Amino acid sequence: MRSVFGLLAFIPLFSSLAIAGPVTDFRLDNGMQVVVVEDHRAPVVMHMVWYRAGAADEPPGSSGIAHFLEHLLFKATDDLTSGEFSQIVADNGGSDNAFTSHDYTAYFQRIAADRLGLMMSMEADRMRDLLLSEDDIGTERDVILEERNQRTDNEPGALFREQMNAALYMNHPYGIPVIGWRHEMEQLSQEDALTFYRRYYAPDNAVLVVAGDVVPNEVLALAKAHYGALRPTGNLPTRARPSEPPQLAERRLVFTDARVSQPYVRRVYLAPERNSGAQEQAAALLYLAEILGGSGATSVLGRALQFDRQVAVYTGAGYSGTSLDSDAFSLVIVPNRGISLEEAESAMDEVIAQFMQDGVDIKQFERIKMQIRASEIYALDDVSDLAERYGRALTSGLTIEDVQAWPDVLQAVTPEDVMAAAEAVFDRDRAVTGWLMKETEEVAE
Amino acid sequence: MRSVFGLLAFIPLFSSLAIAGPVTDFRLDNGMQVVVVEDHRAPVVMHMVWYRAGAADEPPGSSGIAHFLEHLLFKATDDLTSGEFSQIVADNGGSDNAFTSHDYTAYFQRIAADRLGLMMSMEADRMRDLLLSEDDIGTERDVILEERNQRTDNEPGALFREQMNAALYMNHPYGIPVIGWRHEMEQLSQEDALTFYRRYYAPDNAVLVVAGDVVPNEVLALAKAHYGALRPTGNLPTRARPSEPPQLAERRLVFTDARVSQPYVRRVYLAPERNSGAQEQAAALLYLAEILGGSGATSVLGRALQFDRQVAVYTGAGYSGTSLDSDAFSLVIVPNRGISLEEAESAMDEVIAQFMQDGVDIKQFERIKMQIRASEIYALDDVSDLAERYGRALTSGLTIEDVQAWPDVLQAVTPEDVMAAAEAVFDRDRAVTGWLMKETEEVAE
Repeated sequence: MRSVFGLLAFIPLFSSLAIAGPVTDFRLDNGMQVVVVEDHRAPVVMHMVWYRAGAADEPPGSSGIAHFLEHLLFKATDDLTSGEFSQIVADNGGSDNAFTSHDYTAYFQRIAADRLGLMMSMEADRMRDLLLSEDDIGTERDVILEERNQRTDNEPGALFREQMNAALYMNHPYGIPVIGWRHEMEQLSQEDALTFYRRYYAPDNAVLVVAGDVVPNEVLALAKAHYGALRPTGNLPTRARPSEPPQLAERRLVFTDARVSQPYVRRVYLAPERNSGAQEQAAALLYLAEILGGSGATSVLGRALQFDRQVAVYTGAGYSGTSLDSDAFSLVIVPNRGISLEEAESAMDEVIAQFMQDGVDIKQFERIKMQIRASEIYALDDVSDLAERYGRALTSGLTIEDVQAWPDVLQAVTPEDVMAAAEAVFDRDRAVTGWLMKETEEVAE
Repeated sequence: MRSVFGLLAFIPLFSSLAIAGPVTDFRLDNGMQVVVVEDHRAPVVMHMVWYRAGAADEPPGSSGIAHFLEHLLFKATDDLTSGEFSQIVADNGGSDNAFTSHDYTAYFQRIAADRLGLMMSMEADRMRDLLLSEDDIGTERDVILEERNQRTDNEPGALFREQMNAALYMNHPYGIPVIGWRHEMEQLSQEDALTFYRRYYAPDNAVLVVAGDVVPNEVLALAKAHYGALRPTGNLPTRARPSEPPQLAERRLVFTDARVSQPYVRRVYLAPERNSGAQEQAAALLYLAEILGGSGATSVLGRALQFDRQVAVYTGAGYSGTSLDSDAFSLVIVPNRGISLEEAESAMDEVIAQFMQDGVDIKQFERIKMQIRASEIYALDDVSDLAERYGRALTSGLTIEDVQAWPDVLQAVTPEDVMAAAEAVFDRDRAVTGWLMKETEEVAE
């Protein structure tokens, strides 16, 4: 109920592009980073606390603990009873939630601006003073297992992506699902939760983002009052996850499940992520995804495969770019009736090969560049989106300067950059290709 | 120079079968297990210390540290200078070496029986009193990197198996090579080595195996004198590695390398290992490997593919069975000239399918059973092999009773057991199939 897995994967391309509003940042003495985004159009505020701890920071064998702990943060603390946190938010006319990814865990409330201090007092309370009863552990573990049931085990497409992801990463924990492997989730204990909590939930590992009808100095004063007294852990582990060895051979898999109604082909390549001070290649890959598989009839894959050759009912390309470690670039083709997955994959690869020869269509490129510029203006309207963008960036190895430079980096991308990025990423040795289908018999090989 | 990687994989089938010689075991007060195998035919002794720590016990991101430490144990201690250990062994007419696997690290000397006390004094010394200089770290890291060069990076077949192994294990560290990933080996530090050493090198984590011209009580007295004073760690970590989630789709890969002279197809299935008190399925899988791919013209794959159809120049099946966690069962076919890998794989799968229909040939089964029984007699002659068998078993989750029951478990296997084990293991969803070839163009799909 409280989680958005793989949130990164579902953020529309254009939401990552624009920056706006006066942005101020501070750092408290205990190491807590504070970012304030002003927007005085409505008397509301978004209050978010982001931790630099996600599923990829879990100890081996305890997959799902980051997300499990996210659930448990709504239980009792020394000052609040279980469930009281959200009840108080609701009683004050607000709403609250949380989400976990591989790189971060975040908690937020959207509420009237004059309740900001109250939100901070409660959020600060649960940062260090969580009480976890064995009862809560048992009950909430059932909840996350049921969540896995609904979102993964009962969704062939989700299982398929999970198996592909495990095959994509040979060494890095991004190959382990954020929700966790079921057999490990079943064993998650109070001790696992408390160990993760004590290690990572502390002001020196947190980013406070406040966006809305607030004045920076007042936010700073409130943050000092509520968060300032929290003790830092002092011994945060280095955030160095195992990285990939050379990947020397494409992996392929065919996932069959009787519940599949629409077979499709998916290809995922390892791809570089946005790095602090070096976001150019990631920016070019965002263009590449839009050029190849953006919405509308004008994308390279859509035009060739859905309209001209009519072998596909859907094509797409995906790239997020905001992650701490190596990201993924994905392609998908859903074949038309009567077209086999083998034919569909071949057709997709022919179009990609042709694109690598022909290069970027300049008219399409200029159109996309303009759309990206335009999207910055829309983004100004969404203060929640801005808050999320800062939180996500600051917990994924980027700085405020990187976030603010991003629109210019995007506008500086050239067609040559896009082709160079495509050359670098389209290496089948560093890819997994998957077929999702109903029956094994459909496999032609 | 000092390591045998994947030793498990190269142990001939029959070496795991027979037990002989009076075997006595003790446990010292500090937790050290002692096993004595008597053999008075020659005045020599094999002195081995096995640690329950191997590559699968390494911290994430430090792959290769178990093997690196094995090298470093030949450096200086508080009592010996670097290299002096082996020099003293040689000066006394003996030889020494060491090896590392996923589950254990072992050190041994073969020497005149009257030098046993000296060996123990030196081995006890380096169990707790190793001194590691920064110089040793740098020098020896170059040695292991060169070892990786020679054994893996310059051997396409080794790289191929490494990539397949990484694809076979989605969660368990058996997917990480014992030698380590090069980029992680390059970063291994003095601190990494000392942390691993202090955690695992202690009498409560060690098994002493002495085999040869010795009397148990004298060995015990010597062991007490030399090892008895060593302090246990007291806080050994539980040996629970992350286990595999459901594997839901076969993974396939084609590994191309210009240096390949002989292309082949390899399939690896996850398979259960020998478990304490429950070795029956593993015993059946040993028969299965011998039935399908044993040496000589009588194996199922050999007869059908090398002799009858002449599509292969070599076929084989492999299974070790002695590991702490899930093992692997492998099949291989090296096609004849003019036969594609696709044809070879199909032919192999046809033979397997036919075998699953026909079942075990009783004459072949009885012949193999007799060979296994016979091999027990030969095994009596090799006291080093017996010592290794105990060391390997006791560091892989088995007991002395399991080792001693093993010949009877093997003799009790029925053809029905073999077919049931084959049914359980031959699940393509839990397998990786790899093609090793020179040119991408040979792929027909």
